[in-house]
Amino acid sequence: MSGDCDFGLIGLAVMGENLALNVESRGYKVAVYNRTTSKVDELIAGRAKGKNFVGTHSLEDFVAAVARPRKLMMLVKAGPAVDAIIDQLIPLCDEGDIIIDGGNTYYTDTEERTKRVEAAGMLYVGAGVSGGEEGALKGPSLMPGGTKAAWPEIKEMFQAIAAKVGPNNDIPCCEWVGPRGAGHYVKMVHNGIEYGDMQLICEAYQLLHELGGLSNDELYDVFAKWNEGELQSYLIEITRDIFSAKDDQGGDGYLVDQILDVAGAKGTGKWMSQLALDLGVPSTLVTTAVFARGLSAQKDARVRASKKLNGPGASQNPEMAALAKKLVGDKQAFIDAVENALYASKIVSYAQGFVQLQAASDEHDWGLDYGQCALLWRGGCIIRAQFLDRIKEAFGEQPNLENLLLYPFFEEAVENAQAGWRAVVSAASLLGIPVPAFSAALNYYDGYRLERLPANLLQAQRDYFGAHTYQRVDREGVFHSEWLDLRKPV
Amino acid sequence: MSGDCDFGLIGLAVMGENLALNVESRGYKVAVYNRTTSKVDELIAGRAKGKNFVGTHSLEDFVAAVARPRKLMMLVKAGPAVDAIIDQLIPLCDEGDIIIDGGNTYYTDTEERTKRVEAAGMLYVGAGVSGGEEGALKGPSLMPGGTKAAWPEIKEMFQAIAAKVGPNNDIPCCEWVGPRGAGHYVKMVHNGIEYGDMQLICEAYQLLHELGGLSNDELYDVFAKWNEGELQSYLIEITRDIFSAKDDQGGDGYLVDQILDVAGAKGTGKWMSQLALDLGVPSTLVTTAVFARGLSAQKDARVRASKKLNGPGASQNPEMAALAKKLVGDKQAFIDAVENALYASKIVSYAQGFVQLQAASDEHDWGLDYGQCALLWRGGCIIRAQFLDRIKEAFGEQPNLENLLLYPFFEEAVENAQAGWRAVVSAASLLGIPVPAFSAALNYYDGYRLERLPANLLQAQRDYFGAHTYQRVDREGVFHSEWLDLRKPV
Repeated sequence: MSGDCDFGLIGLAVMGENLALNVESRGYKVAVYNRTTSKVDELIAGRAKGKNFVGTHSLEDFVAAVARPRKLMMLVKAGPAVDAIIDQLIPLCDEGDIIIDGGNTYYTDTEERTKRVEAAGMLYVGAGVSGGEEGALKGPSLMPGGTKAAWPEIKEMFQAIAAKVGPNNDIPCCEWVGPRGAGHYVKMVHNGIEYGDMQLICEAYQLLHELGGLSNDELYDVFAKWNEGELQSYLIEITRDIFSAKDDQGGDGYLVDQILDVAGAKGTGKWMSQLALDLGVPSTLVTTAVFARGLSAQKDARVRASKKLNGPGASQNPEMAALAKKLVGDKQAFIDAVENALYASKIVSYAQGFVQLQAASDEHDWGLDYGQCALLWRGGCIIRAQFLDRIKEAFGEQPNLENLLLYPFFEEAVENAQAGWRAVVSAASLLGIPVPAFSAALNYYDGYRLERLPANLLQAQRDYFGAHTYQRVDREGVFHSEWLDLRKPV
Repeated sequence: MSGDCDFGLIGLAVMGENLALNVESRGYKVAVYNRTTSKVDELIAGRAKGKNFVGTHSLEDFVAAVARPRKLMMLVKAGPAVDAIIDQLIPLCDEGDIIIDGGNTYYTDTEERTKRVEAAGMLYVGAGVSGGEEGALKGPSLMPGGTKAAWPEIKEMFQAIAAKVGPNNDIPCCEWVGPRGAGHYVKMVHNGIEYGDMQLICEAYQLLHELGGLSNDELYDVFAKWNEGELQSYLIEITRDIFSAKDDQGGDGYLVDQILDVAGAKGTGKWMSQLALDLGVPSTLVTTAVFARGLSAQKDARVRASKKLNGPGASQNPEMAALAKKLVGDKQAFIDAVENALYASKIVSYAQGFVQLQAASDEHDWGLDYGQCALLWRGGCIIRAQFLDRIKEAFGEQPNLENLLLYPFFEEAVENAQAGWRAVVSAASLLGIPVPAFSAALNYYDGYRLERLPANLLQAQRDYFGAHTYQRVDREGVFHSEWLDLRKPV
């Protein structure tokens, strides 16, 4: 039995509800289901009132309400709940129906589920959905991957509900990403890059606030100006806005000053870091950002430590400290240098993210189109930014570009920013302000552009104590030396 | 059937062979087995000739040769090979026999195997073994964990073969670590700390060599001097020796200069990093070290990048660059500052390692004794160092010390080192030399000692775009704000 709904959505938390409203608003009839069925009734009687919705109280009714081939999308908590729903849907579905997971699912789960659902005769799509509540309602970034045959069936609807970019606002931020877990992997990297962007903005804030002494009003102006330049992006824009929000709990001051400095996390940044470690690619920005959230969460320990551990004191190198203070003291020069640090570090962060995507695509044979990934992130999602046009352009010109830092536009941007970047990292180190992500980015840049790193010594150590062998610079082969015999007698 | 051997060893690669010889040298009779049985014959006819060994050509004969309760130790490649041997041993063993895995096994495997072997009526021990080839032969550091009842049976032998420390050279670097996978976890953290130590030494080398212009002879003298001070350790000692080794392939120069700067890795550092991410504890040093190895391995990419990407050039802040060059130009002052950076960073690295051990012990209910962990590493292993006496002392005085940085000795050591540490990180940032681990350590120190980090802004962003909520500084509870309504109209 099948009904006449064009689309079915399971899971009516705020993301699911908003996405269902988005789909309906494009002219589609939508069936909805939620395990706590009162949520269904609330939606139908509330925000969906008078709209083209069918509320259902069982998965049987839900599946029956949708026209074949059915497009059934889950927006539920990633993990066992997704498997439980798939297990219930399979016997209710017909051959060719499409089951879609729009959650933040770990990509290997999607790899496995694609195979499982395909084996049952259905099609499976793991779709990254980004843009938060507002994006879900008005136009998210969508990163679908899975059974390729599903794409022609869902393309029109997905592109209709997606964010639009381009001069005519008609390029949808939704294209097919690749087989199996590719869509969820790309979404995870999106989130990891978001972690990096947020940490970098926080470090800029810390420097301008703690060292530069900028007030929230001044910070508002700085971020407003930055949002008109190369840094233009959704995150810079909302940061600007945050500095203008007054306390909504009755205080006189600004809300941001009343918020506890303990960062939460949902896990996608951690996954990207762990997978970078597995791939052997140095995605240091996301990892630094994840660890910075971890350190922020140790609030009580930090309060205790703050009473015991000193920062740079009188023993400081006096000339260097004086210069660092001089840099900080020239307010506009310091703001500009911080902007340089933020921009250069952001370029490094994206460069690392795309290197990880390349390594993952090679490993899993996904055949990712990197320019298209940049396109998907140009609108709708949290990291949306002008900047991504340049990345799209870079991979458009050089599909096999091995690192964004080598693309002339970015090479030049970093070149122009590096004096300020280095000055800021240097001053922060001298004056005792933590800038882990600015530092990690600079260290990556300086390591990547060095033909010779000190790993020759490291290989010598490993061969000395563990006979792990090494290669030589002047001939092929694998070597082991009898170091005990070669060393100078002590 | 059981024989009269005191101990059985499976796996005659260099570590296994040396460990077997070590056991025999303490007065025990040893049975040996290897899958490729010619290795058994070679050992018996070679290094074991005239010694108290029994060579066997099948696991049946091997088990039969050992007296009950049998102590049967595997030193084979971690992974499926260990399970395969366990599966073969179980039907051959008698109740109360002890199966020991001395490999670098992932601790969850040991957790699972302990339960499996115990269910079959035997006892299981996962023992970390450190010290490389030489340690295995002369006295390794041993970190056994698993079935507690096995400890009284193996204690005498294990402590006999272990490295000894203390004024009378009679304190064995071997104590019972804890249940199930505790021994292998502690060994993994040992290896992760080793990664950090090696990376820190490499950064010191890079700075002194590239910026300071020190020759290998001068580096030998520097490391020889460092090895007489607070940095005294096996790794500093062998680094000293490495700088004296001449090319053994016929060249005129030093061997270290002929070694390719591409670092290998076996995976334990990666595991520790991934587990730190799972625990939410910022073990940034080991992760930075793992990523630095990853970047070193991208040699071809670095060579290409080195031809395109510039370091600090004419656009550099001229006053800061001049001061950085001045610091570097005063050779002895620079060497001292690098020593400060190395020492302070090393303290941070160990502090992070112990924080991770504490978090893991809490999670798995292992009841680790942290002072004892330090004791186990004082001799025999790769990270053996004077320094560990201080850590033993710290946890001896304060078993619940939450961070080594808060122990007066280390607090003061960092205080004394921080001017040089900051100057070095600052100069390296300005002059374009990568110091990812020195930087990560400094950023951890500066983040840890700050009562207020910028995570308040991060929480504001998360609540703005994703309604993730936040806490406040002035009252209990979880808050969400309507940021769109609070912001200043643009």
